[in-house]
Amino acid sequence: MIRKTFSLAATFICAGALALPALAQSDADRAIDYELANSRAYDTLEYLTDNIGPRLSGSKGAALAVTWATKQLRAMKLDDVRNEPVMVPHWVRGVERATLVSHNDQKIVLTALGGSVATPENGITADVVEVSSFEELDRLGRKVAGKIVYFNNPIDMSLVESGRAFDAYSKAVEFRGAGPSHAAQYGAVAALIRSVASASLRSPHTGSLRYDEKQPKIPGAALSVEDALLVHRLLAKGERVRMHLVLTPRTLPDAPSFNVVAEIRGSERPNEIVLIGGHLDSWDLATGAIDDGSGAAMCIETMRVLKELGIKPKRTIRAVLFMNEENGLRGGHAYFDAAAKREEIAKHVAVIETDAGAATPVGFTTTLEGSALANFTRAAAPLNRIAAPLTWESSRHTGADTSPLTDAGVTGFGLTPDPRHYFDFHHSPADTLDKVDPHQLAQNTAAIAGLAVLLANQ
Amino acid sequence: MIRKTFSLAATFICAGALALPALAQSDADRAIDYELANSRAYDTLEYLTDNIGPRLSGSKGAALAVTWATKQLRAMKLDDVRNEPVMVPHWVRGVERATLVSHNDQKIVLTALGGSVATPENGITADVVEVSSFEELDRLGRKVAGKIVYFNNPIDMSLVESGRAFDAYSKAVEFRGAGPSHAAQYGAVAALIRSVASASLRSPHTGSLRYDEKQPKIPGAALSVEDALLVHRLLAKGERVRMHLVLTPRTLPDAPSFNVVAEIRGSERPNEIVLIGGHLDSWDLATGAIDDGSGAAMCIETMRVLKELGIKPKRTIRAVLFMNEENGLRGGHAYFDAAAKREEIAKHVAVIETDAGAATPVGFTTTLEGSALANFTRAAAPLNRIAAPLTWESSRHTGADTSPLTDAGVTGFGLTPDPRHYFDFHHSPADTLDKVDPHQLAQNTAAIAGLAVLLANQ
Repeated sequence: MIRKTFSLAATFICAGALALPALAQSDADRAIDYELANSRAYDTLEYLTDNIGPRLSGSKGAALAVTWATKQLRAMKLDDVRNEPVMVPHWVRGVERATLVSHNDQKIVLTALGGSVATPENGITADVVEVSSFEELDRLGRKVAGKIVYFNNPIDMSLVESGRAFDAYSKAVEFRGAGPSHAAQYGAVAALIRSVASASLRSPHTGSLRYDEKQPKIPGAALSVEDALLVHRLLAKGERVRMHLVLTPRTLPDAPSFNVVAEIRGSERPNEIVLIGGHLDSWDLATGAIDDGSGAAMCIETMRVLKELGIKPKRTIRAVLFMNEENGLRGGHAYFDAAAKREEIAKHVAVIETDAGAATPVGFTTTLEGSALANFTRAAAPLNRIAAPLTWESSRHTGADTSPLTDAGVTGFGLTPDPRHYFDFHHSPADTLDKVDPHQLAQNTAAIAGLAVLLANQ
Repeated sequence: MIRKTFSLAATFICAGALALPALAQSDADRAIDYELANSRAYDTLEYLTDNIGPRLSGSKGAALAVTWATKQLRAMKLDDVRNEPVMVPHWVRGVERATLVSHNDQKIVLTALGGSVATPENGITADVVEVSSFEELDRLGRKVAGKIVYFNNPIDMSLVESGRAFDAYSKAVEFRGAGPSHAAQYGAVAALIRSVASASLRSPHTGSLRYDEKQPKIPGAALSVEDALLVHRLLAKGERVRMHLVLTPRTLPDAPSFNVVAEIRGSERPNEIVLIGGHLDSWDLATGAIDDGSGAAMCIETMRVLKELGIKPKRTIRAVLFMNEENGLRGGHAYFDAAAKREEIAKHVAVIETDAGAATPVGFTTTLEGSALANFTRAAAPLNRIAAPLTWESSRHTGADTSPLTDAGVTGFGLTPDPRHYFDFHHSPADTLDKVDPHQLAQNTAAIAGLAVLLANQ
């Protein structure tokens, strides 16, 4: 989709950013200071993760999270709190078990990729063939027929360590999405990837695959890094590696769910919207503390802070807790469709998404570029005392749930906590509350709250 | 048992250590240099862990390891390679599954403790009670009847980080061994500990429990650190925590197995023995690369190096690959009993055990003390160029498998690789080959080989 620049956003960015009035700065400062001193974001995250637990779309946990978050927001006496319906995929994991029948029936640790079909009930037993690229797979062609294709896709740790973890992830994750169908076109019976992870203690990391409807659907799973290395070493020695694989996931009928939407209406321009959003669903392997319980908690907490401080932003601040970011993005699309029906798309002045964990905030990505960005970063100086001065990086992609909006030309911002350890835990059983530091969570919330108020008060 | 000092060892240490003859140093130097330049220890470890895999006593993997190690040693044309029989426990893990029925049926990650009995087939559902000490449990007394007792036993990370990881382990592990029976005496239906681990990505760490035969046997399991923290947080908030627990381990009849013993006979005093030993068995959750595949590989490799160099030590160097260190120490006792029957105990000049991983070697523990130790460390200077100068620390305990020998007064040495990350992996699914660095493994092997030759040539 071609990006259009809406006049509203453009006006704001070009005309407004150079000299924000004192009042606007003051509200942002107040929100930041209050959050840093009085944060309850961690309590919110603790309940969501410890008491509700995993929240995969369609699950009881996801439904409980919607009910609970709605209740929390309603208790704040905001101007509006509503559930916007969305039908979501309902995928259930089942058994996942593998052994190397060629090597003393050693157990192999893996996890089904989200959306994967099941193996036959008694499993698949087949030779494993390793490839490092789609090109290599294409060269092998039908030689992989009847076999299990293993995509050897290590994450680039030098990128991770230099702070480009999301770039490293994007590269390595390509095979997770497209690998199974690519292998299926040559008759492979299953596809494996190496977990896209920057740390491992035999930890499998899940995530969605995307089937090409023109190809047969074959099961897909992610090996733990250790098991991927084992398979690689055995194959590199020239040994035949034969695996028995049992996966019994089921795709149930789509389930009804909701985005949770809460608003503080603008005092001067209530029809203009600054959106803050994170997602309420998580993968099923863990309680989703960093992905994206922390983002949801930041949004809930921002509304609490603004309300408790009595801040009346000029524009409407709307928090959206999206459903189904992980395995469908149905919530992001449903929100867009509902907003379009309300003729609201162009009324979104800016969208701020938080879905990258809660380590110390280092900056934001933004769809702003050039002088507009330069102007904006000067106006956003109040945020710089939260942690080290923030970086602002131009990017077409500032968040998945808000991508329908930014694709339509809305100005986007994406919070960037320090990404160096995010993929140690992401989509794995280890994404639990203990990975989040309460003060860092408050810093991130202060950044979201501060930026939202700055944008809304312009 | 009171430690006796055998005259042979005492003579050696007091008279011999100050001025080792040039030949002895030269053999040690040669062994060290050869190993550092031409190590094949990693290849040995790779086959043991990748191709054979987990090696819990009584398992097919353990039997394969005995056969394979024996074959490797026989191929070296040593003076003797033999299997010494030992009957070992045969415990099989089975299903391990737990959920918090009080909290949305959240999955709890745990693993059965070695030797644990099973729950009833349909599991146990009971409230969880947390205690931090046996004293606290004693105060609660029968209040824990019908409940699951959770021993909250965090490892002291300041000790771990300061290099006292084994001390930290010893403290925290107390509840693993004695906890279940201590809880059973008050009517508890199961006992849980926090995995004794210095790192976790939702990683359960197993290890043996010890039942008190006077108490009812109740199941015991180790929670991952994350799950232990979750249970702790919920209880600390005053919530009722109710767990459903299914464990189906089985204890089968004892199985026949073997210690693998290999010798290079002494050229001058063949009846005097310097023993080097590690253990061939591992836990079942992983391939036991650090515990103790690396120790076994060091011993096999030492024999290869000495043989290939044509080193003819004055005393006999005997490598023992013990069976069943992990869950019974039957191999260590069987070796002692067989040696006693041969009237060989007093002929052991020294025993060197390696069962602490393969990170950079930092020193040895030793039963030597005072001036004997001071003299010895000067004589052992050739070892100091392997890595940083080695530390020599007096300790009553220099290894489990050789403890029957050192308890009987034989001089003991225990290799100490850098312990700071050992308990990140120990007894967990993550104890795999990738945790071992080939050069560090060679350094450790050089330390074992060098020390053995020094001791044997005196």
